[in-house]
Amino acid sequence: MIGQRGGTKTARVERYRDGSSESRKDVLAVEEPLEIRVSWQGKEGRRVESIAITMRTPGNDFDLVSGFLRSEGVLASASDVLELSYCQGPEEQEYNVVEAKLAPDVRFDLELLRRNVFTNSSCGVCGKASLEAVEAAGCQLLPAGLTVAVELITELPDRLLERQTVFERTGGLHAAGLFDASGKRHVVMEDVGRHNAVDKVVGHELLARRLPASNKILVVSGRASFELVQKAVISGIPMLVAVGAPSSLAVDLARRFKHTLVGFTRKGGFNVYTEPQRVE
Amino acid sequence: MIGQRGGTKTARVERYRDGSSESRKDVLAVEEPLEIRVSWQGKEGRRVESIAITMRTPGNDFDLVSGFLRSEGVLASASDVLELSYCQGPEEQEYNVVEAKLAPDVRFDLELLRRNVFTNSSCGVCGKASLEAVEAAGCQLLPAGLTVAVELITELPDRLLERQTVFERTGGLHAAGLFDASGKRHVVMEDVGRHNAVDKVVGHELLARRLPASNKILVVSGRASFELVQKAVISGIPMLVAVGAPSSLAVDLARRFKHTLVGFTRKGGFNVYTEPQRVE
Repeated sequence: MIGQRGGTKTARVERYRDGSSESRKDVLAVEEPLEIRVSWQGKEGRRVESIAITMRTPGNDFDLVSGFLRSEGVLASASDVLELSYCQGPEEQEYNVVEAKLAPDVRFDLELLRRNVFTNSSCGVCGKASLEAVEAAGCQLLPAGLTVAVELITELPDRLLERQTVFERTGGLHAAGLFDASGKRHVVMEDVGRHNAVDKVVGHELLARRLPASNKILVVSGRASFELVQKAVISGIPMLVAVGAPSSLAVDLARRFKHTLVGFTRKGGFNVYTEPQRVE
Repeated sequence: MIGQRGGTKTARVERYRDGSSESRKDVLAVEEPLEIRVSWQGKEGRRVESIAITMRTPGNDFDLVSGFLRSEGVLASASDVLELSYCQGPEEQEYNVVEAKLAPDVRFDLELLRRNVFTNSSCGVCGKASLEAVEAAGCQLLPAGLTVAVELITELPDRLLERQTVFERTGGLHAAGLFDASGKRHVVMEDVGRHNAVDKVVGHELLARRLPASNKILVVSGRASFELVQKAVISGIPMLVAVGAPSSLAVDLARRFKHTLVGFTRKGGFNVYTEPQRVE
């Protein structure tokens, strides 16, 4: 990464347009994990527990934690929270852990909250959503074999969506699909959740005993977040082609595992954020 | 809802274009909760536990569950899962609960998985992500007071984004903001996660002791899912204006709480899915 300002970072990108490519700076949305801890007055003294990890753009973290706890029904008003603070610790990521200290009279049911908090089919192997955790899960560097033509990449979004009606395209359904280097479409799935569409694709290939998919390209109709790159890496898919933008952490993860991450893909061109040697 | 086909449903919508409005059918992406249960061979016999609830579009649910468990590191290959089945029960929602029966030799650590599964700052008050659960949380029907001019609604997306640079707009950051009926912008937040941007807005208002926000409009740069409408309802915000499409469950929830849900908002017009009397 070259620099950071507010919720964005700049990075080098290989930009393909109208048959030629150039290296230039591009802007990425910053994505980092935030762990939310709650401290409350229990029957046997004050307790602190971690209740959630969410992928977020740093900034206004105390607002984020307050709003989360409000939506979870923990906070009714501002006076229910005595203090919001970043956790101090020997580890580096102290600005990624926020503790909310509840007033003594606030009723807090940890088990109820844990049952109630939605899980997002996402990170998976990592407790801390860190690159190290993905490594620890035994993921391998992706092999070099696959190469894909520039022209094919520009056509992949249309091939992904060609069976969707206009109604479906505008109706908010995300699509994810698996293609090979000849452009053949193997499987396409749809869902309101980007991560669910990818899980459906990966699960379909798992049940068909076709994983790892080391000669396939994963194509998604939306943005490329950390969790989507992670799902691709875990399933051995060496290239992700997204119609939308990648996040900063998605680029970091792709770089670490030699995964080719392509964003802003349309008829006229696309951007390659990592490992451009798979693009020919 | 009028009808359902694949991942979409049709619904009646009030369509505003160029100064006039008409009632017509519109297509919505279907969004429903899926509970994922795992059955595995423990030291003291076979156990079954619920491990995740995710909001998904029905269809290919077994693929979804397999892909989720693969990404979580539970399944390495298809032979690790003996059976995938919808849970039968007296309750209605049997097609929203899937059980994966793991082979006896698969190592499964429930506590580790629960620590690892990301939480999505989302549903909050409801364990089953059902409309009934939102009711049970004591949410009130939204009051009638607020009315907003058609012209102002068409301008709200631009007012939301006017401080974002082009780089930020294309870089994948979502924005959420709170406005009043005169168009005054009170607070705007950005995040890679749509739900996080809304949590930041709600938390900011909570800490400033300005909830419930019964005379405000929540404006979001992306789609309107169930969880975003839920966050608005819980905070007493009577209108949500989205640039993108709403989901089917978002419309159902808005209708139940007399919340005004506006989608596909741009310069030329917008669609009102529920409670159009707040649009004047």
